[in-house]
Amino acid sequence: MKSIKVGVCGVGNVGGAVLENLSNSPEIVENNGGVKIDVIQVGARKGKSAVSFDLNVTTDLLDVANNPEVEVLIELIGGCDLAKDLVETSIRNGKHIVTANKALIATHGDELFELAKEHNVQIGFEASVAGGTPVIKALREGLVANKVNWFAGILNGTTNFILSKMSDDQSSFESALKEAQDLGLAEADPTMDVDGTDAAQKASILSALAFNTPHNFELVSYGGIESVSQEDISYAADLGYSIKHIAYGSIEANEVFVSAYPTLVPNDQLLSQVGMQMNALEVNCDGLGSTVYYGPGAGPKPTASAVIADIVDISNGGWPVSKNFASKNLLSKESQQGFSRYFNLTIKNEAGAIAKVSSLFASKNISIEALIQNESKANQADHTHVPVVIISGPLTDEKAFEMTKDLHSIDEIAQSIKQFRIHNAL
Amino acid sequence: MKSIKVGVCGVGNVGGAVLENLSNSPEIVENNGGVKIDVIQVGARKGKSAVSFDLNVTTDLLDVANNPEVEVLIELIGGCDLAKDLVETSIRNGKHIVTANKALIATHGDELFELAKEHNVQIGFEASVAGGTPVIKALREGLVANKVNWFAGILNGTTNFILSKMSDDQSSFESALKEAQDLGLAEADPTMDVDGTDAAQKASILSALAFNTPHNFELVSYGGIESVSQEDISYAADLGYSIKHIAYGSIEANEVFVSAYPTLVPNDQLLSQVGMQMNALEVNCDGLGSTVYYGPGAGPKPTASAVIADIVDISNGGWPVSKNFASKNLLSKESQQGFSRYFNLTIKNEAGAIAKVSSLFASKNISIEALIQNESKANQADHTHVPVVIISGPLTDEKAFEMTKDLHSIDEIAQSIKQFRIHNAL
Repeated sequence: MKSIKVGVCGVGNVGGAVLENLSNSPEIVENNGGVKIDVIQVGARKGKSAVSFDLNVTTDLLDVANNPEVEVLIELIGGCDLAKDLVETSIRNGKHIVTANKALIATHGDELFELAKEHNVQIGFEASVAGGTPVIKALREGLVANKVNWFAGILNGTTNFILSKMSDDQSSFESALKEAQDLGLAEADPTMDVDGTDAAQKASILSALAFNTPHNFELVSYGGIESVSQEDISYAADLGYSIKHIAYGSIEANEVFVSAYPTLVPNDQLLSQVGMQMNALEVNCDGLGSTVYYGPGAGPKPTASAVIADIVDISNGGWPVSKNFASKNLLSKESQQGFSRYFNLTIKNEAGAIAKVSSLFASKNISIEALIQNESKANQADHTHVPVVIISGPLTDEKAFEMTKDLHSIDEIAQSIKQFRIHNAL
Repeated sequence: MKSIKVGVCGVGNVGGAVLENLSNSPEIVENNGGVKIDVIQVGARKGKSAVSFDLNVTTDLLDVANNPEVEVLIELIGGCDLAKDLVETSIRNGKHIVTANKALIATHGDELFELAKEHNVQIGFEASVAGGTPVIKALREGLVANKVNWFAGILNGTTNFILSKMSDDQSSFESALKEAQDLGLAEADPTMDVDGTDAAQKASILSALAFNTPHNFELVSYGGIESVSQEDISYAADLGYSIKHIAYGSIEANEVFVSAYPTLVPNDQLLSQVGMQMNALEVNCDGLGSTVYYGPGAGPKPTASAVIADIVDISNGGWPVSKNFASKNLLSKESQQGFSRYFNLTIKNEAGAIAKVSSLFASKNISIEALIQNESKANQADHTHVPVVIISGPLTDEKAFEMTKDLHSIDEIAQSIKQFRIHNAL
């Protein structure tokens, strides 16, 4: 049986799970993948005490990048500074790379792939998106014969857990976040998850694969779930929707638009059924239609599963090097695509207020598909204002922001106006 | 850019879609896959008139198998006789194979893989299961680092369409089948779909990949959906289940059990939400948990998508040859796994009848989790009998068949007793 020599840098939760899998059950990969993976060096800044197995450990990670015996460097330290240095040094030394580092790929992907091309080595990054669910493999290999029209994904387990808890158990945002932290599903500082950065980075990586665009995280527009309230989730449910944080990428002519926002998903669509910390990605292609990939999006074992699959692929010759250098497709910040919208307004409880709002929609030639005005679902002592929820016809992001601004100018509307996209899977 | 020379045998719906994709949009595969696929010969028994593109056509399919220039033979003629001859001849001539032929792989897989190993060539069969949804790739590559515990799949689009129509539109089995035929989703002779053979063949192929078992279709137990009535679907819905045709494979120690039967799936599980002619496969692994793959399971374009993905993979070096020759895992006809069960009985509408039935369950130490006895949902003129639905605790297949037999012996029970598995995704 052939074998491949790897060096593992980073022995946190994911690195630990990789070493555990390869040390305790090497026969699984040998039987299934036809290759013996030899971990010949481990880079652990805390030294040998941080590694549970009897392996060759160095505290200087660059030792691994410079070890002439190492064929594949597994980068699991995260972040963009040392990780980038480590990966670049390894590539220059002729080593293949396997990484779980979404920030590194989303931010420096193009430089790294170019360098890898020069040095004729491979970069595996299956673990950077959707953890143990092989979505990179599906996009890059399984769907290779198809033109992708759009993708839509639930790519952040933490926010999906929070939204699911708010929906299923009527938890508040704060208590759902606390529960996610207690379960180890959210970081002590959950900012990157909650504000949409994490999902947006993953969407950027998927866009490069789906549309052959450059990796340019600057051009991904995104927002977080902080603005989603219990009340929004309840109104959405009444109207037949679930609120999910959806990373969305689409192409129109050669223009690609990538974003990640809280979004209402119709309950008859599979993405709406993805609960708890699970991830799912829907990819819609010409001719083929939609395929959906669902599974655990994070956690040590799922991430280790993806890392090891990449090593096996590299031992079998790897993948064609990304062709995005030659593509004419361009990332654009402004999409011309229309989405139906959910508006949540608080208006004065007085005659004529609703008429003003609906007149504004009419004057802008925007259809109102549904309107709910009733007693507040929140325990609201204030009876001078009532919540109004409107589902509009399709609007571009630009028009939706304009409309929100115009609504603000109506005296009878209190200052908090929310607007979310509605996913139309056409 | 590298190139690969292929010969396509069979120009029906799928073959036509392959030629259309490669002739009309070669840039998709070139950009995404980094390879130019040259169709240098086409085998069409009806000759040039059956081929819409200006290609080198022969009416003798073996010409393609013997053409020294052909590197990959694409077998799309179906069936097991000529197809087997064609594939074997090609392998002996050193050609790789790509096939959509599930019957061929399920029945003759082991011989063919052994022959391929001898001749150092690859066999791609992604298109044989779940059409355009890359489930073979997920099992063989994406999940390579994991021990599979079980898989459960909706693998036949025709039966899923029929069951969905019966559920959503209250169609009868007959009218749903007619609609499937009118839409081109079912064959004029739908026997292989309806009686479960097609799904069972696919389950057999998945088992070989998931558990490294030999391909032995004889040891797959299966049944069709003919026995599922509108009434069963309605009772199942009342109890929180959908009825799906589920292909199921599991391993216990080294014993593998593969089957395909109508099965009740709890509505909170993703598989229950797979409607119309769509396919889905759930794969449950140690540590990783479940991943689910959903998409179009048949049709010319989805199948062509899978065929072309295999050609690209082969141009990149292919896959490790199946290791099932060395595996200790054995297929077994009798599973020791317990499933909760749905029983539908028709009992005499008289005092004591229900007591006899529940006493029988008690005497066998089988728990009754739910029992519904009410007026028939069907427009039944006969008021001397009433339907009774029982959800039992877990029973092996053997115990469930025994129980059905014992129930038959109760005088108050009419002769038709139905028993379906309930999927427990643990």
